[in-house]
Amino acid sequence: MAIRKIKLTIAYDGFPYHGWQIQPGCPTIEQTIEDAIENLTGQKGELTGASRTDAGVSALGQTAVFQIGSPIPTENLAKAITHRLPTDITVVEAVEVPPDFDVIKDVKSKLYRYTIFTGEVRPVLQIRHCWHIPEKLDVAAMAKAASFLVGKKDFKSFAAAADKRETSIRTIFHCDVTRGSDWIYIDVEGDGFLYNMVRNIVGTLVEAGIGRVEPEKMTEILEAKDRTAAGPIAPAEGLCLMWIKY
Amino acid sequence: MAIRKIKLTIAYDGFPYHGWQIQPGCPTIEQTIEDAIENLTGQKGELTGASRTDAGVSALGQTAVFQIGSPIPTENLAKAITHRLPTDITVVEAVEVPPDFDVIKDVKSKLYRYTIFTGEVRPVLQIRHCWHIPEKLDVAAMAKAASFLVGKKDFKSFAAAADKRETSIRTIFHCDVTRGSDWIYIDVEGDGFLYNMVRNIVGTLVEAGIGRVEPEKMTEILEAKDRTAAGPIAPAEGLCLMWIKY
Repeated sequence: MAIRKIKLTIAYDGFPYHGWQIQPGCPTIEQTIEDAIENLTGQKGELTGASRTDAGVSALGQTAVFQIGSPIPTENLAKAITHRLPTDITVVEAVEVPPDFDVIKDVKSKLYRYTIFTGEVRPVLQIRHCWHIPEKLDVAAMAKAASFLVGKKDFKSFAAAADKRETSIRTIFHCDVTRGSDWIYIDVEGDGFLYNMVRNIVGTLVEAGIGRVEPEKMTEILEAKDRTAAGPIAPAEGLCLMWIKY
Repeated sequence: MAIRKIKLTIAYDGFPYHGWQIQPGCPTIEQTIEDAIENLTGQKGELTGASRTDAGVSALGQTAVFQIGSPIPTENLAKAITHRLPTDITVVEAVEVPPDFDVIKDVKSKLYRYTIFTGEVRPVLQIRHCWHIPEKLDVAAMAKAASFLVGKKDFKSFAAAADKRETSIRTIFHCDVTRGSDWIYIDVEGDGFLYNMVRNIVGTLVEAGIGRVEPEKMTEILEAKDRTAAGPIAPAEGLCLMWIKY
């Protein structure tokens, strides 16, 4: 039987999970999906995800690949795997990809959305998927600050100290701050992100929204190449991986 | 110190709780709020809620009363209690009411909203607060069926067998079915509701939306005064108590 390489597009509520990556003794998204695939195919297989989302981070368009030897038709896989998953994880799509497809290296761009709620009353039904900041944020100042991040730049100031990647240079295609009544959305599209980069960017943009940081200071923060130059990290709950393009 | 009677307006995510009403050994909304009040005032007090929402049912505008002997100003109570609550419960407002105010009998009307998602892909971020029906529902037929429920009627056919209330006559002021892209909302306002009444109405309206029940059959179902004449009960997750008017 021919081995196929399958790319899954996956959506999940990250709140109840200890992130994407397998950790012994903790429920993770990767483990839960691997178990569902094993239950379906009878074969233990390794899943490789494009983004190792942190504990509490959700996704509507995570991608991951695995090898399948089972004769189950590709077009039935999304439903069959989803059927074996808890209701807070779903496989949106399953497609066959060429053997040399690399789910990490072939990424062209990713979009993350960060959601902030600024109303006074705690939004109990959305609290697992937003950062509640019950004060007035200056969205124009946040958008201005965000504009300085667009382009090919060294984002070392926005990377967690734990980030061990070779280079901290990434390209941000756009970083938009929009408001809809009490909700603020920060959409960041880039060719890749350093560890905690989006959450550190959001924490810094919120400082600009509160008026603690001048939007123009973003250039200085980038040039410092030092994590302590930027603002505090935003909570994981507000972050959602929207899609990944190849 | 004068005893005051306080009315709270409360919002909560009902998913993780075993309903409103205290049950030994289970986390309930009522117990969680009573504990928070005791923690704040040092006094054990009884909370009386207007609606005994079931396990899994959420609320944005539940109301409840309790007696307070503590000198804490009324205007500080909402924040002080909320501070002692988990993030999925919040006190929206606290106001003093006259000693003879009855949180149950003085209700003029209540609005429940039921949320259905009809898109193909499971909505992982909203799955705790909706009923996922991945098929086309005829909203016009549902709205037509709903229109037969408006008025002062005997809703015995829509009451759980366990309902032991004296009369099953209630007045529904309006019952609207609206659609926004893949979402369908059923808003039912009435002067009171029998046990499981809204969920039984929704289950029956969905039967109309699928085409299994003719909208005109609602009259017959009402006249039967028999639970088995109506459709199946809708899941608790989709139901939310929006507000209560006095």
